[in-house]
Amino acid sequence: MYSFKNDYCEGAHPSILTALTKQNMTQEEGYGMDRHSLNAAQMIKELVGYEAAFVHLIPGGTQTNLIAISGFLRPHHACITAKTGHIATHETGAIEATGHKLLTVNTIDGKLTPDLIAPVLVEHHFEHMVKPGMVYISNPTELGTVYSKAELTALYEYCRRKKLLLYADGARLGAALTAQGADLTLKDIYELTDAFFIGATKTGALLGEALVLKNADLKEEFRYLIKQRGALLAKGRILGIQFETLFRDGLYFELARHANEAAQTMAQELGKCGCRFLIDSPTNQIFPVMDNGVIKAMSQRFGFYTWAKVNDTHCAIRLITSWATPAGEVQDFINLYREQIRSMPPFVDVPA
Amino acid sequence: MYSFKNDYCEGAHPSILTALTKQNMTQEEGYGMDRHSLNAAQMIKELVGYEAAFVHLIPGGTQTNLIAISGFLRPHHACITAKTGHIATHETGAIEATGHKLLTVNTIDGKLTPDLIAPVLVEHHFEHMVKPGMVYISNPTELGTVYSKAELTALYEYCRRKKLLLYADGARLGAALTAQGADLTLKDIYELTDAFFIGATKTGALLGEALVLKNADLKEEFRYLIKQRGALLAKGRILGIQFETLFRDGLYFELARHANEAAQTMAQELGKCGCRFLIDSPTNQIFPVMDNGVIKAMSQRFGFYTWAKVNDTHCAIRLITSWATPAGEVQDFINLYREQIRSMPPFVDVPA
Amino acid sequence: MYSFKNDYCEGAHPSILTALTKQNMTQEEGYGMDRHSLNAAQMIKELVGYEAAFVHLIPGGTQTNLIAISGFLRPHHACITAKTGHIATHETGAIEATGHKLLTVNTIDGKLTPDLIAPVLVEHHFEHMVKPGMVYISNPTELGTVYSKAELTALYEYCRRKKLLLYADGARLGAALTAQGADLTLKDIYELTDAFFIGATKTGALLGEALVLKNADLKEEFRYLIKQRGALLAKGRILGIQFETLFRDGLYFELARHANEAAQTMAQELGKCGCRFLIDSPTNQIFPVMDNGVIKAMSQRFGFYTWAKVNDTHCAIRLITSWATPAGEVQDFINLYREQIRSMPPFVDVPA
Amino acid sequence: MYSFKNDYCEGAHPSILTALTKQNMTQEEGYGMDRHSLNAAQMIKELVGYEAAFVHLIPGGTQTNLIAISGFLRPHHACITAKTGHIATHETGAIEATGHKLLTVNTIDGKLTPDLIAPVLVEHHFEHMVKPGMVYISNPTELGTVYSKAELTALYEYCRRKKLLLYADGARLGAALTAQGADLTLKDIYELTDAFFIGATKTGALLGEALVLKNADLKEEFRYLIKQRGALLAKGRILGIQFETLFRDGLYFELARHANEAAQTMAQELGKCGCRFLIDSPTNQIFPVMDNGVIKAMSQRFGFYTWAKVNDTHCAIRLITSWATPAGEVQDFINLYREQIRSMPPFVDVPA
Repeated sequence: MYSFKNDYCEGAHPSILTALTKQNMTQEEGYGMDRHSLNAAQMIKELVGYEAAFVHLIPGGTQTNLIAISGFLRPHHACITAKTGHIATHETGAIEATGHKLLTVNTIDGKLTPDLIAPVLVEHHFEHMVKPGMVYISNPTELGTVYSKAELTALYEYCRRKKLLLYADGARLGAALTAQGADLTLKDIYELTDAFFIGATKTGALLGEALVLKNADLKEEFRYLIKQRGALLAKGRILGIQFETLFRDGLYFELARHANEAAQTMAQELGKCGCRFLIDSPTNQIFPVMDNGVIKAMSQRFGFYTWAKVNDTHCAIRLITSWATPAGEVQDFINLYREQIRSMPPFVDVPA
Repeated sequence: MYSFKNDYCEGAHPSILTALTKQNMTQEEGYGMDRHSLNAAQMIKELVGYEAAFVHLIPGGTQTNLIAISGFLRPHHACITAKTGHIATHETGAIEATGHKLLTVNTIDGKLTPDLIAPVLVEHHFEHMVKPGMVYISNPTELGTVYSKAELTALYEYCRRKKLLLYADGARLGAALTAQGADLTLKDIYELTDAFFIGATKTGALLGEALVLKNADLKEEFRYLIKQRGALLAKGRILGIQFETLFRDGLYFELARHANEAAQTMAQELGKCGCRFLIDSPTNQIFPVMDNGVIKAMSQRFGFYTWAKVNDTHCAIRLITSWATPAGEVQDFINLYREQIRSMPPFVDVPA
Repeated sequence: MYSFKNDYCEGAHPSILTALTKQNMTQEEGYGMDRHSLNAAQMIKELVGYEAAFVHLIPGGTQTNLIAISGFLRPHHACITAKTGHIATHETGAIEATGHKLLTVNTIDGKLTPDLIAPVLVEHHFEHMVKPGMVYISNPTELGTVYSKAELTALYEYCRRKKLLLYADGARLGAALTAQGADLTLKDIYELTDAFFIGATKTGALLGEALVLKNADLKEEFRYLIKQRGALLAKGRILGIQFETLFRDGLYFELARHANEAAQTMAQELGKCGCRFLIDSPTNQIFPVMDNGVIKAMSQRFGFYTWAKVNDTHCAIRLITSWATPAGEVQDFINLYREQIRSMPPFVDVPA
Repeated sequence: MYSFKNDYCEGAHPSILTALTKQNMTQEEGYGMDRHSLNAAQMIKELVGYEAAFVHLIPGGTQTNLIAISGFLRPHHACITAKTGHIATHETGAIEATGHKLLTVNTIDGKLTPDLIAPVLVEHHFEHMVKPGMVYISNPTELGTVYSKAELTALYEYCRRKKLLLYADGARLGAALTAQGADLTLKDIYELTDAFFIGATKTGALLGEALVLKNADLKEEFRYLIKQRGALLAKGRILGIQFETLFRDGLYFELARHANEAAQTMAQELGKCGCRFLIDSPTNQIFPVMDNGVIKAMSQRFGFYTWAKVNDTHCAIRLITSWATPAGEVQDFINLYREQIRSMPPFVDVPA
């Protein structure tokens, strides 16, 4: 049974374990002041192209989100997010637990646009309602879609005009940056947001997310906020060494590209068999729609989640690939699918 | 320059890295439901002797404290702690950030007793003041001292009588359990508290603390609280594998004992030279009082913190040893001290 | 210019001011322990028919909601509410500011039912999402509609079965209880919820809401929670005297009935002229749909809010009457409306 | 039995009730936008001498403190206060409930000075500890003492130099401003703090505190913060009318002076009989030290709190007078005391 359930089933890329082992016995400062964390921060500053960037390594994504959002906002400020945004669905109310309301927006593809945000600003116009103070986006989104440079530019310009901070959750940022057709670089992300994070847990690390702050007001005293939420690891080296390894020689991007390619290979081959998709995703998560009987058969051999009911006979499933997904498993999945649908009637179109 | 600044200067015990490497490519469930985390929890249940124990592995100590304390208390409840308690001093107000006041008590040696707590209960007697709801202790304390079984029994009985939860911060619990003369076991700690944690970061792991809950009311829905504070690691395996390694064949206790012995060797040898100590600590942190000139000289060769001014010519320094402290560095420190004081006048007694 | 904008334009019913004046110079205990507050609580206990009820008088409604909800829930619990619920829209994120997420449900008429709640429970099924812990309803709702005894019974039974607390915001509870066709009594409300409040600010008092708790777990130490949020008035007498006055001889119900009748008179007379309503409300707020030209003309003489655009030529306005609304103003409004529509074409039906 | 327990035993000054009655039936805007609240704010602006002041009327003192402090600080900021400060003792952890730690300082007389604050700043020097962000003082203090202009000037200059906000709790500000020898005006308080409030509950109003903000950063969007904490009363008129009445023709100061004089008359006459005091207070609360037998006898006829044990035979009691204290009760108290001590041995000096 091979699992396509998520991209954190395996441990770390072997070169990370090698580096951890090699550096293991040197003595380092604690709490993120070790040479590796400082060096990793410097490497990221160079990648984003700005020495003034504030970079800090944090164990997990939910933690990074709650530290950033509660650190940026005054008590009456709310954060706008797509209804599908991770903070709105799968973080157990972590943002609200810091005192801030989320204002959710329905989207088709998980992406926010000025047009989708505008009505929220119109509605929240006086002191009996929360004041929108920032916009949260995920790139890629929870549906696997990515922002183009034009889209992110339009969004950021809108946010600046409306005095909204723009913050990007990059739990799978590597997948977004290396997706086919993607035109954003790390430098673009830095220039087109106030803050974002680069996720490593889902791109080959054991754990770790790099929070990057541009806005000068946000940087001040930020390590206090990280410590207060319990996110300043005593042995910060474990984060530093991993990011050093991932960003030396572009390993991070290579691993993200591998994951994307595995998913896209499946998407193409399934598509050739007539399979439709819930949404068109260029990254490492895809949502093929399958006959319930086929799903049952596939699940005998592969792990994955059934994502949404499409009609009485079909569901969309979610397949996620990772830096560690073997080409053989991808091929086996495709082969099994082909075998399953051989005797099926041609697929009936799914209405929008 | 060898550092005695803390017990998290080095990485992990090599057998942990070996285990992480060995298990690296198997696929596991996420968020603490991996086989290693479940197995580690089972091992700890066996060590505490109660199958009903709830055990969860959490990345860091501040995080564990804030999750536990805020998870146990109603909004108007306060937590009683020694003034030297870690939550009261070095967690950047993490507990208050979850809404709860700390009521601090002056102590001589960092330990709480019923007699020290009683006046707090007398003072906080009506609804214009917070209601004491729990007692936080550290074992060993931040001064390196440890609770005896008789002391912990008296404290727990008092807490039960007064309807106060008792929670023990065990960031260095191994050091407490293996200190010379210590008479508490993990089973005792379980029986004599409502909840506690077993720290691994400072006893040979890269990161990780095992929260153990006894009280049935506290266990319910506890994973929600862990997730909400961002402490449910996607790759929980990194915690599970480390605890498995530490608790298989007693490695955890062996490492703690090593650290204690290194510090106690220094304490004995310094004592033989006439050195006094700020406090009598049987664990891996000691507080020798030295002439300022000697301190300066020692600091050319060893890293450590100056802890407190004792008089115009003397300060107490803090020396911390770890599972990784080499015997050679201990001996070198002792030798250098002897050399330094050779020409010193006999030590003038420090007044209380 | 007479205002139908809300039911808190005027001061207090004159008998309240008389009572405040009469009792002014007697010395009373502070913080809600005065004879008047205790007596008012006793009167309310008798009205709900249970001596075990806990009753406390609190200055305002937002305050009452935030104290109750944050006092009832554990940190990871969320509160289910209609999307139109006051806590979800017009309390500036007060509930989230105490750390709790609101889960909003779309409704037609502002009322929740088991069928509407069930999908929320299905969706929130594991620890990566908040856990629904209570249900908030308003009676009457923010749209003026009221719950029948059968509806509230069904809802409460469902909540008990699902281990959800049921809490009712009664900012205008008098209007609900005295609406034509309403079949709920205060005793019913007590029996069919875990907690609720009886609003007085909008029914003739200067300020004041009476929080009533049934559930024994909730009552414990509740005054601490009230004090912690700043809602324990030093001169509690100002609340006590007002509630004594309102509940002696049924003045509260008489004032609520007056407000309802004024609004319903308008509704009937407008209806006779062919006016349609956004929603059918039996209480003191009504939502007639009018031609934009008529609205403009009416607004020269009367104050009211335009509530919602219905089509390009029509909007719904909101009219609220109070205990103080004079019959003459009601009649003048009706007359002016008749005058305005005399020359209008027959009303074109508004599509659902 | 006449009570000297506090200054909120009685209702309001009669002219307040007259004004409430007179203005009762006019229609006003809600939530503090009524003509009376706006007018009262304007009157206070004129008293402090700055049109740019932001003034808002809030029901209670605990509420005002928690709104102001949580509104001013970032999450990791703490507030420095005397150990006797009201926020640190008698507000049920209200400030901590908003997420902020209080750093308490031992004082002799309840007053803070730069010298007392300096060590707190030295101690809290890095991100493992909270960052002091503001200083809270009470004037008069909880011990009845008052700040001189020189003292407040020194404190404010220090705070500005150290980038600490200075906030003054003026629950009894009238008593401070009208105390014999006091040299501070409302204008001085405004110039020498960043924010403060003028308490009316304890100076003749039914309820109400006027928060005054100077600092421009603090003012922005401040009404959101007031609403979020439930402190925007629907019928704001009740606050507006009271402050209008109190500040028209100086009634507020007259009432405060009356209270001070009643207490000082008692202090002088008791002093003439040889009575000592726990502390020298020039305002409306005094702390005479009496023989326990005398205290018992006095308590048959007068209500008051026993404040502190002084030695085995003596305690300090607390006597508070108010705007409503009749001269006759003051005289009766003095007479009864004289009678009681007639047969007593001369008072034995209380050691410091």
